[in-house]
Amino acid sequence: MRPRCDRFWPVDQQRPRASRSSGDAALRCTATPSTGRPTRGGNGSGGEDGGAGLRPPPAAPGRRPGGAAGGSVASEGSGGGRGRPASPPARRRQRRPAVQSARRAASAPPAPSGPRGCALQAATPPPGHPPPPASELLLAAAFVSDAQYNRNIPFKTSPEAVRLYYLYNHWFMRTATYFFIFLNLSLAVFEEPAVYPLPFLATSLVEVLCLLVFFGRLMHFAKITRRNVFWKDTKNICIMVAILLSLTDLAIYGALRIYNIKSVRWSRIVRPIFLINFAESRQIRRAFRSIRNTLPEITYVFLLFMFSLLMFSLMALKLFGERNLQTAEGLPYFRDYLEIVFDLYVLVTTANSPDVMMPAFDFSSWYALFFIAFVIINTYIFMSLFLAVVYNNYKKHLKNEIRTLAYMKRRKMIEAFNLLKEEEGTQFVVREAQWKQLVKLVAPDISNSHRELLLRISDDEQKGFIDKKSFVQLADLLNIQVITLKIRSHPLGRWMPRVYRSAVSRFLRSVVRHRGFVWTYDVIILINAIFIALDEESPYISYAEWVFLALYIIEILLKVYTYEPRAFFGRNSYKCKNVLYIGTYLLISQKTNLFLFSATKYNSQQILDIVFILRVLRLIRIVDSIQRFRVIMNTLINIVPTMLTFGGLTLVVYCIFAVIGMELFHGKIQFFPANSNAPYALECGNPALKDSLFARGKYCKNNFNNFASSFIVLMELTVVNQWHDILSILPLIPFVLFANGFANVTAQPAKLYFIAFHIVMVIIIINIFVSFILEAFFVEYSLEKSEVETAIEQKIQELGMGVQEEALQDEQLLDNMESADNDLEGEGGTKAQPKGLVFKIASKRYRTVDALLQRMFEAEIPLEDEGPSFEEILNLSPATAVPGDLTSERAE
Amino acid sequence: MRPRCDRFWPVDQQRPRASRSSGDAALRCTATPSTGRPTRGGNGSGGEDGGAGLRPPPAAPGRRPGGAAGGSVASEGSGGGRGRPASPPARRRQRRPAVQSARRAASAPPAPSGPRGCALQAATPPPGHPPPPASELLLAAAFVSDAQYNRNIPFKTSPEAVRLYYLYNHWFMRTATYFFIFLNLSLAVFEEPAVYPLPFLATSLVEVLCLLVFFGRLMHFAKITRRNVFWKDTKNICIMVAILLSLTDLAIYGALRIYNIKSVRWSRIVRPIFLINFAESRQIRRAFRSIRNTLPEITYVFLLFMFSLLMFSLMALKLFGERNLQTAEGLPYFRDYLEIVFDLYVLVTTANSPDVMMPAFDFSSWYALFFIAFVIINTYIFMSLFLAVVYNNYKKHLKNEIRTLAYMKRRKMIEAFNLLKEEEGTQFVVREAQWKQLVKLVAPDISNSHRELLLRISDDEQKGFIDKKSFVQLADLLNIQVITLKIRSHPLGRWMPRVYRSAVSRFLRSVVRHRGFVWTYDVIILINAIFIALDEESPYISYAEWVFLALYIIEILLKVYTYEPRAFFGRNSYKCKNVLYIGTYLLISQKTNLFLFSATKYNSQQILDIVFILRVLRLIRIVDSIQRFRVIMNTLINIVPTMLTFGGLTLVVYCIFAVIGMELFHGKIQFFPANSNAPYALECGNPALKDSLFARGKYCKNNFNNFASSFIVLMELTVVNQWHDILSILPLIPFVLFANGFANVTAQPAKLYFIAFHIVMVIIIINIFVSFILEAFFVEYSLEKSEVETAIEQKIQELGMGVQEEALQDEQLLDNMESADNDLEGEGGTKAQPKGLVFKIASKRYRTVDALLQRMFEAEIPLEDEGPSFEEILNLSPATAVPGDLTSERAE
Repeated sequence: MRPRCDRFWPVDQQRPRASRSSGDAALRCTATPSTGRPTRGGNGSGGEDGGAGLRPPPAAPGRRPGGAAGGSVASEGSGGGRGRPASPPARRRQRRPAVQSARRAASAPPAPSGPRGCALQAATPPPGHPPPPASELLLAAAFVSDAQYNRNIPFKTSPEAVRLYYLYNHWFMRTATYFFIFLNLSLAVFEEPAVYPLPFLATSLVEVLCLLVFFGRLMHFAKITRRNVFWKDTKNICIMVAILLSLTDLAIYGALRIYNIKSVRWSRIVRPIFLINFAESRQIRRAFRSIRNTLPEITYVFLLFMFSLLMFSLMALKLFGERNLQTAEGLPYFRDYLEIVFDLYVLVTTANSPDVMMPAFDFSSWYALFFIAFVIINTYIFMSLFLAVVYNNYKKHLKNEIRTLAYMKRRKMIEAFNLLKEEEGTQFVVREAQWKQLVKLVAPDISNSHRELLLRISDDEQKGFIDKKSFVQLADLLNIQVITLKIRSHPLGRWMPRVYRSAVSRFLRSVVRHRGFVWTYDVIILINAIFIALDEESPYISYAEWVFLALYIIEILLKVYTYEPRAFFGRNSYKCKNVLYIGTYLLISQKTNLFLFSATKYNSQQILDIVFILRVLRLIRIVDSIQRFRVIMNTLINIVPTMLTFGGLTLVVYCIFAVIGMELFHGKIQFFPANSNAPYALECGNPALKDSLFARGKYCKNNFNNFASSFIVLMELTVVNQWHDILSILPLIPFVLFANGFANVTAQPAKLYFIAFHIVMVIIIINIFVSFILEAFFVEYSLEKSEVETAIEQKIQELGMGVQEEALQDEQLLDNMESADNDLEGEGGTKAQPKGLVFKIASKRYRTVDALLQRMFEAEIPLEDEGPSFEEILNLSPATAVPGDLTSERAE
Repeated sequence: MRPRCDRFWPVDQQRPRASRSSGDAALRCTATPSTGRPTRGGNGSGGEDGGAGLRPPPAAPGRRPGGAAGGSVASEGSGGGRGRPASPPARRRQRRPAVQSARRAASAPPAPSGPRGCALQAATPPPGHPPPPASELLLAAAFVSDAQYNRNIPFKTSPEAVRLYYLYNHWFMRTATYFFIFLNLSLAVFEEPAVYPLPFLATSLVEVLCLLVFFGRLMHFAKITRRNVFWKDTKNICIMVAILLSLTDLAIYGALRIYNIKSVRWSRIVRPIFLINFAESRQIRRAFRSIRNTLPEITYVFLLFMFSLLMFSLMALKLFGERNLQTAEGLPYFRDYLEIVFDLYVLVTTANSPDVMMPAFDFSSWYALFFIAFVIINTYIFMSLFLAVVYNNYKKHLKNEIRTLAYMKRRKMIEAFNLLKEEEGTQFVVREAQWKQLVKLVAPDISNSHRELLLRISDDEQKGFIDKKSFVQLADLLNIQVITLKIRSHPLGRWMPRVYRSAVSRFLRSVVRHRGFVWTYDVIILINAIFIALDEESPYISYAEWVFLALYIIEILLKVYTYEPRAFFGRNSYKCKNVLYIGTYLLISQKTNLFLFSATKYNSQQILDIVFILRVLRLIRIVDSIQRFRVIMNTLINIVPTMLTFGGLTLVVYCIFAVIGMELFHGKIQFFPANSNAPYALECGNPALKDSLFARGKYCKNNFNNFASSFIVLMELTVVNQWHDILSILPLIPFVLFANGFANVTAQPAKLYFIAFHIVMVIIIINIFVSFILEAFFVEYSLEKSEVETAIEQKIQELGMGVQEEALQDEQLLDNMESADNDLEGEGGTKAQPKGLVFKIASKRYRTVDALLQRMFEAEIPLEDEGPSFEEILNLSPATAVPGDLTSERAE
């Protein structure tokens, strides 16, 4: 099981890091979120050893091994307040891949902490156990890491495969895959019909490159998993078929192009398959599964809806068909059955609401009843019914999936436990030293003190080992964001204590800390908003803008004076406020630029636009200062990552429909600038559109001429208004496509394109999106802390290092901390509490989408359901819990 | 407490009913739904004694006292199959007021059952207890009846007041109140500006009459309740103020009219108050309360939404304001801040979706991003957020209300128990005889066998009395619809058994019973649909219509031959099928008419239209024959009554806005028929609309010229499309209203009218409607039987008289029954089961809105919440449970 593990497991070799740690040292490393996803954040440092693979880096002093060595601890100790990973350097450190840390974890037991190091860590230095078998540890760490991030890739357990698996999960590899997926998708921008045309050779070369990368990634995956698992997975088959199809199409198209025969690049529809099927895009796949699961139920409702539609159409035909009515455009009204069906379908979306009714209504007022009945039944009841069905199914299936995920997580943790367990009396346990190594491997970026905290929670009675039940909790524990706060005084207070602690200074600081200070600036911002809205031509107003700028700068200076500067900047990270400050900075520089370049008439439109928007964004601060609004805003911000999944889903649907749309409608409509002299400029370049609503409404830029325009048109179709106007391009299709003989073929089949889009996008995806938002808000409204979090909080309170969450309003917290600092200095630390260090759970934040989803349903999975299954899983024999059995098809 | 009770309690006096029971006798009276609401169904019979008040009717033989006497029981016994109260005579019987039955209940103990009577009833004939004090019984029945229908009127308990209370709840009084409320509302149709103009004197006389009726009703109510309760109730104050206001306005308007001074009938806005505040419209009041409760939460979201809107508008002003862009109509684009806010608000509703974007999009494609961001944030996220908030609040508050209602119900039942209780050993109980009298009083229309069933459930061990806990359940038991099925053979089988049981006849019947028969006719209907859609000019198709008619008649004859005729017609009651058969009959008669009158060129448009629609409605049969669709359809039908509440809500809002709209916009726009020669016919009679989109779109009939048109316009505004087009009438207001000097006042304030309507209607009411449908469907999806129903089913099973619900498909059931009939005849009834009588719970049907609501939340009210409260209420002393304390303000 463990051959050659020494080869890739270099003990006591570290990389030179001093060059960057000098930059880091200025920041506190006390922020110890344990869930920094390796996928995000592409900086150069990680890239180096991503490229270097698993070769041992050269040893060097001054490294920063996750806060274990003295140098970095010193910089840790110098911090204070909350340091969230928002500031770029802090973030960079956090994104280090697991492989790298694996090396470090195998190093000697951590050195004693530096002069300002964490007291907690010094409290329990691990005794000198012999290092565990490295490959076992690495495998266990892979399991724990998978459990933490809910990855369900059934990898082989041989050290070779585990090494490859680490490489596979390396952030660089994942980023590269995503990069090539999006490169492949964005080729549509450069291919015919192009936004930015590139020669066919260039795009086809890039496509071949992308396909090669995909193939390589797939081969990599094949090396990791067992062969039977690999071939059973439809994802892999899909990818292979897609690669083959793309290559075939490319070859055929290229060959035909040489002989100047025009053909269709049909394989471009296949491209979103890569986005869906690569293992990284679990969320999108889950959303697709959610859709697939909803389909049977929704089909019944849809059929009933269609039946109702057809019946109403039949009624309309009988009622109005023989009246010889005319529409506003003078066309015959409600004569043809299929036309009626389509018109009424559009009425369901309310897009042609009064128009379709007016001829009948003009004829007799009573006919309005027909349309009212139609709208009530089809628009209100059936559309609500769609939402109800989608929401119900979404909830049900998501619950099932999350439950399966939770079971998988436990399985993996037990697997890891079985790898590391040692006998202790009657039970198997994991020794403390080994546990620490494991945690360092899995989460190299958490601070020593945080790790000690986790250890104390897991090893409640300080027995020196962790039993199975506590060990299984580790993945959840790691997912909880614990903020380590360090108490420190203002640098000015240290440099010139006399001045800083004088009465004037104290008064100034109390003024700044007062609520009224915030309110004053809110009022100033409001006044500023009024000035922004006013005309800028007047010189007084542009002078006023300078006054506001000065006021904002004074505010920043005062706050920096009052609060500790790093706390001030750190505090605003991950907050909208940050945007505002950055906005202010940008504004200042921009204003300066404008001032300087005003002589040379500098007036770049784009930069001015950005400045305008940033100035307005400043106003968000007002909302942020009202508690009720902040709650809603925070909820909105919390669900943003999950909403990105729907972005992906939308992207897939848009890509497919855009490619089809471009093939069908490309070039039918041209856009000309306002004062163009081109023929038919007013008719969008097409004489058939003369006097049409489409041309009169100046919709000419809504066309399928390139990828970007297609996206805009599809967006307009999603919003479902005036889409029947956009459809007036339809009569052009027979006009051009079937010009030689099929002129009497109507555009009916092409309408299916738009109806299909409406069904997919509006009836299904938008409803799922609404379901998601509904569910997320209900959860937010009713969210209570999970058991694991409560355990951590209890432990924090027990250790006497807690900060009441309620007290954690930004200003107040810092006030408390400073006064606590002073108190401690005065009392001389009578308690055994590590001086200047407090923990806090940032319970309202979810870093991964899965974590949010699991939280969403944790409360709904009944305890009795978890109870027996938990035991069942605990009692599973290692043979059945082998990850080869964890096929990714069910849960992932 | 009980003076003069003998005066209005005539023992042994009954009314002549033989004349009508002859008609009824043809129908089985076995259908015993216990919740026939006295409000519905206005026939002449009840009206008689409604007018007669409480005077005793003359005694007569042959009466039909709820199935207690021999004559009616005989007619009961002659029935078979399910008899739901759909057929008009059956329904008529069921709507008898409680007062009437109170008389009957005081009559002698029921006579022994007739020759074909119910075995169940004969099994436990009540011993000859002395009749209970009548006034007590009447009061108890009032409590039980209130509990059953969730009425929460705090009436006085003196016999006089109870009598008045019975009169107050009499269906005639209630119907009359509703009639006058709607008459009052519909006055708007006849008043200036009128659809059908009537002289002012006529309408004002009718209004005074209505107000007098309202005042009388209020006085009646004041007689029933205690004075302090009456004056504490805001409803009553509201009504009085509304009456006063209406009279004042009427007087002023009338006086000014005499002097030919034009004034505004402002009091017409007050009229919906009567609809809201009369005690009968509990549902609408609850919906209003639901809105009021949601308001605080929604206000925060709305403010945040407005903030986002204002911020985006500011950005838009800065981005586009100085570009000198023009809209498609050549107007300046995004110059004025308020204009931008309005345009973007309309964009939130997606009504001006591509139009508002096009100028910026034409200028630079990148600006589309601004609108995409706007739509995602404001249309999708914020509108979902509104739904989430409304749904969450709706659910929460509705749950509270239903819980309170449930507690009130228990209280009333305990009050009734305390009135009737007698001591029995260590506990208080209600004797069986008294219980039966009570049930007869409360539910005079349930059959003897049903009452015996209820008795067996309440008195589980047949001890001859009912304890408190079982008694309290009575209201729930009465609300459960139990279907009594009687087994009987085909009349043809009795009249000519040889022929009917011959091989040919058997084969024919098995063919008709076969599934294929239904399918064949479904196919025939489909073919018919195609023929309907085809052109009717061709003579062949109109001949084909005759063929289809013949086929349908053959189907009906075959079914009548196969199934028992009354079962066949009864079976279809309350089903959409019924409509189809009626449609077919109508169609036949109509076709005959057409045929007969074709010589005289009979061609009434309206009748033809109805025939067309009925022909199409026939197609519903296809849907009804597929199980999955039937489930959805049944759910839809189940929630129709509750949806009427929202109809009422909408009516109130529409009335108010229509009255305001008529005052503001009346006469600004005229509609002219297509070929009119009037001046400005193409500009809707207003030169200001020349070349406007409004006139070009031929929207002239969308005006506020009368009540009906206003409703149509408001409906179009509800559907939220093109409402910005409808708003193009706005510039006319300053043009006309402020013509003398205020011409430069813009139409901005009038826009508020439309925005207010949108907020009230779309953001609040439509969302509550959607919430209701969502909730109703979730409940339907997850509905399990309540405890009480399970108890009844268990009892039915115990008694061996159950029918499996799954087996109760229409055809199958009748098949089973016939075969069971044959079997029983063959075996000679070995079991102790009453021959030919089975019960079944129609569990999926809710007759009252409250019952549905209670079912909706029964599952969610936790058991531990009910447990202690139930005991608590049981242990309440009679003093605290006095109905005077049941103020209607909290729960009702």
